[in-house]
Amino acid sequence: MAKSMHLLWGSGSAPCWRLMITLEEKKLQGYQQKLLSFEKMEHKSKEVLEINPRGQLPTFKHGENIINESVGACLYLENQFKSQGNKLIPDSPAEQALMYQRMMEGLSFLEKMEFFVFYDFYAPEGERHDSALKRHKDNLVTELKLWESYLENVAADRYLAGGFSLADVVFFPSIACTFAYGLSPERYPKLAKYYNLLKDRPSIKATWPPKWFQFEQRSESLKEI
Amino acid sequence: MAKSMHLLWGSGSAPCWRLMITLEEKKLQGYQQKLLSFEKMEHKSKEVLEINPRGQLPTFKHGENIINESVGACLYLENQFKSQGNKLIPDSPAEQALMYQRMMEGLSFLEKMEFFVFYDFYAPEGERHDSALKRHKDNLVTELKLWESYLENVAADRYLAGGFSLADVVFFPSIACTFAYGLSPERYPKLAKYYNLLKDRPSIKATWPPKWFQFEQRSESLKEI
Repeated sequence: MAKSMHLLWGSGSAPCWRLMITLEEKKLQGYQQKLLSFEKMEHKSKEVLEINPRGQLPTFKHGENIINESVGACLYLENQFKSQGNKLIPDSPAEQALMYQRMMEGLSFLEKMEFFVFYDFYAPEGERHDSALKRHKDNLVTELKLWESYLENVAADRYLAGGFSLADVVFFPSIACTFAYGLSPERYPKLAKYYNLLKDRPSIKATWPPKWFQFEQRSESLKEI
Repeated sequence: MAKSMHLLWGSGSAPCWRLMITLEEKKLQGYQQKLLSFEKMEHKSKEVLEINPRGQLPTFKHGENIINESVGACLYLENQFKSQGNKLIPDSPAEQALMYQRMMEGLSFLEKMEFFVFYDFYAPEGERHDSALKRHKDNLVTELKLWESYLENVAADRYLAGGFSLADVVFFPSIACTFAYGLSPERYPKLAKYYNLLKDRPSIKATWPPKWFQFEQRSESLKEI
């Protein structure tokens, strides 16, 4: 089954990592994959654009079915392979509600982080303002504190919505990025505990982005927040 | 069942509208609801913040289960009430893949529209640049053309992913906004056809936002694009 799957991906992209974790969790190893380079703009190559007119990674095909949006692809794979590998959407209404809530909030977290960390990418020279950068920083701090509070009452061996679920699949790659960018484990102890609980999970270890940091200067950008 | 549901919503909010369409489609009429005013900042009131720390609408509870993220709430309701009302996630793998893909892309569409239409809201005075506004406009035009192309080969009585689905639930409120803001049906004929096909659907008609335009000047902002 996995042999009919094709993935084009980029290292360090949270959306790509989500999809790869899901493929591992659903025991869909053996899919065809190719690592492309964002630096070389390969996400805008003909090979990608033919499948994904947005020129983004991941680009994913299952047989003739194209599903490039990472959260959409995770939902699709969970639905298509319900009884294979780990169950990623809980049955209990309470856990399921929390799971969908955190899964979608995970997208807000990534957006807030990217607006701050990649400010120079989003705002071209001549359009940059210290006031905007400060606002993005404040928004990210608010977001981090919110997630810290979400994890406050979670039992030691539990994840965002009880058992490991699509909420963690969506959120983990983003929180891993923040620690890689220098976020202080002392200032965000619950997030650090969550990160440590998950970082050695087989599906996550097997898909850890290679050569994550091409640009050393990025790695300290969250040190002070 | 619907009596144990509580919705706080704002008129003209695409995320609120999505959830209300889903409640209609799933025959969950009779839920408790309260219309709040964005203009009076009621989305930042204690009543909202107690349930939704982000201070956003919709704010939604089903019994004790809180699920404020609109797409998450739609997925939750479809899963919890699978055999009630209309089925909103297709079974066939091909339609399901397309459904999840368009559903998640619908979030990109709304973001692109809002960055342009609400530019003055996102960029405070002193941080505004004509070059940024032009970039947001170009991004929205690219996005509109992409959706126009998606609808190119859709049969006359079909929707984004075959039958009416969560893809339409997520996308329709946003495309309805663009036409309300003056988008030209002549320049985007496929989108106009799609809009006309859906605007009188009972679930959509029943939830059409009251007093949609508080600010008349907004209504022409997409006329020229």
